[in-house]
Amino acid sequence: MASIKPLADRVVVKAQEAETQTASGLYIPDSAKEKPQRGTVIAFGPGKVENGTKIDMTVQEGDTVLYGKYAGTEIQLDGEDVLIMRESDILGIVND
Amino acid sequence: MASIKPLADRVVVKAQEAETQTASGLYIPDSAKEKPQRGTVIAFGPGKVENGTKIDMTVQEGDTVLYGKYAGTEIQLDGEDVLIMRESDILGIVND
Amino acid sequence: MASIKPLADRVVVKAQEAETQTASGLYIPDSAKEKPQRGTVIAFGPGKVENGTKIDMTVQEGDTVLYGKYAGTEIQLDGEDVLIMRESDILGIVND
Amino acid sequence: MASIKPLADRVVVKAQEAETQTASGLYIPDSAKEKPQRGTVIAFGPGKVENGTKIDMTVQEGDTVLYGKYAGTEIQLDGEDVLIMRESDILGIVND
Amino acid sequence: MASIKPLADRVVVKAQEAETQTASGLYIPDSAKEKPQRGTVIAFGPGKVENGTKIDMTVQEGDTVLYGKYAGTEIQLDGEDVLIMRESDILGIVND
Amino acid sequence: MASIKPLADRVVVKAQEAETQTASGLYIPDSAKEKPQRGTVIAFGPGKVENGTKIDMTVQEGDTVLYGKYAGTEIQLDGEDVLIMRESDILGIVND
Amino acid sequence: MASIKPLADRVVVKAQEAETQTASGLYIPDSAKEKPQRGTVIAFGPGKVENGTKIDMTVQEGDTVLYGKYAGTEIQLDGEDVLIMRESDILGIVND
Repeated sequence: MASIKPLADRVVVKAQEAETQTASGLYIPDSAKEKPQRGTVIAFGPGKVENGTKIDMTVQEGDTVLYGKYAGTEIQLDGEDVLIMRESDILGIVND
Repeated sequence: MASIKPLADRVVVKAQEAETQTASGLYIPDSAKEKPQRGTVIAFGPGKVENGTKIDMTVQEGDTVLYGKYAGTEIQLDGEDVLIMRESDILGIVND
Repeated sequence: MASIKPLADRVVVKAQEAETQTASGLYIPDSAKEKPQRGTVIAFGPGKVENGTKIDMTVQEGDTVLYGKYAGTEIQLDGEDVLIMRESDILGIVND
Repeated sequence: MASIKPLADRVVVKAQEAETQTASGLYIPDSAKEKPQRGTVIAFGPGKVENGTKIDMTVQEGDTVLYGKYAGTEIQLDGEDVLIMRESDILGIVND
Repeated sequence: MASIKPLADRVVVKAQEAETQTASGLYIPDSAKEKPQRGTVIAFGPGKVENGTKIDMTVQEGDTVLYGKYAGTEIQLDGEDVLIMRESDILGIVND
Repeated sequence: MASIKPLADRVVVKAQEAETQTASGLYIPDSAKEKPQRGTVIAFGPGKVENGTKIDMTVQEGDTVLYGKYAGTEIQLDGEDVLIMRESDILGIVND
Repeated sequence: MASIKPLADRVVVKAQEAETQTASGLYIPDSAKEKPQRGTVIAFGPGKVENGTKIDMTVQEGDTVLYGKYAGTEIQLDGEDVLIMRESDILGIVND
């Protein structure tokens, strides 16, 4: 299986599936689903260097994170679509 | 219930409901309501780091804050729409 | 009555009414009135911090200030429209 | 009469009238006149502060200055249109 | 054969061929192929200099790297199209 | 005659006339002439100040300089069109 | 013959002619030729100054360099079209 080593402060996120059923039990067609803004961290870089100092990363592998609709770049890893974004594109960490 | 830990200087704000009744007592339909620009702080990050120094946050949980019409990113938390914005997007704190 | 504590170097300004009568005594309809660019300072923040140093504010409460047509964000305070802008958006202080 | 105290490195300039007669003696209608790019300094601020050091102003009251077509913000002072611009928008000082 | 010495923090990448056959065995015509976002490092520069310090490069020759759809500039080297991009345009290194 | 004292690192350049005759001796009409990109330095400022240090100017009065098609601002000086540009808009000095 | 002294970190490049014959021997008309992205360094400046330190140039006269399609400004020198660009617009040096 392919693994990826993100550069600098980049984070690889697997988006969580959007709900396909509304609260009232109706299935909604694909085109009406909002693009997910929540995902799971599957890899992250060593942190970026600013003025000679490495800035530590905050996120950990397995964290559920929130991010904006247009955050990151879509890439394919082992046939799956994942996102690579900078940690600064991550809004917060969710504890369910 | 889900909780969220915002990164850096981000603040989670629950927008306050816009008035649904005008001063003269008429109900106004949804589409005519101005998007609220006032909300309540429900979570905030540790503060951002600039040149190795952490900048303390000014807002506190429970503060009523004002922000511009286009500030922040809408996310869903426990089925509710909340906004995550940077503290620099907050214009001021209101004391009613 | 609601009061507001602006963050950083922000200033709350109450725009002065535009003239509703021309020099020759004709009343001009609302849509032809230029948007006011002159107002009164009603609140201001503690000043912004740059490289660890707080920059003092220049304006004072009650000052009549000039600002560009598109300066600031309109917010409502006690049912009145006021503007919140950064001090750098203020062009000068007028002494009548 | 109203006076104005510009903030930071701002300069108040009274634009000089554009010529209303061509070299060959023909009067040109108003709409064909080029917007003036030459004016007289009538007020200026204390200078801007950069990294804790105040930068002295170069222009003096009464100087005839040149500026680009789109420099500054038009404001009204005692019923007259004047421009407020930053000193960096001033291209040079003219000695006639 | 021509060789190239990239300047600063630039990296020369040979894009990997996009798949010309779908999983189900159908050939897809050229125009439907997604532009590759995966390639092999064939040369890289000495690293950029920031405030008098040279920043070491992370990628090595032969690395398989991921990059955004619009990263880099296409140039021709020995009749082949290759990309030159800055290392900061590289999202991560893939180990298959 | 009017003289001008440019501010900071600005340079006043008198554009050289574009050729009105082609190599083969045909006159070309005005609208087909390329806008000149070559001119003569007629005045220059004291140099800009960066972090408290004045940066010396490189160009001298009388230098023939090259500049991009859209460099500088056109102003009128004694009825002549001249350009004021920053020294950084000057590409090089030509020795004929 | 005219010579040019580029300012700061600028480089004068003479673009190499695009091929006028395809590999299979067909002549291609002018409009189909790709704009050259490869040229020869014919002059370069002393290097730019950053925070009081002059940054040495990497390219040498006679180097064959690669640059992006839109790099530099076209100027005429002795009737020939050449490009002046900043060294940071040069992607790499080619050894044939």
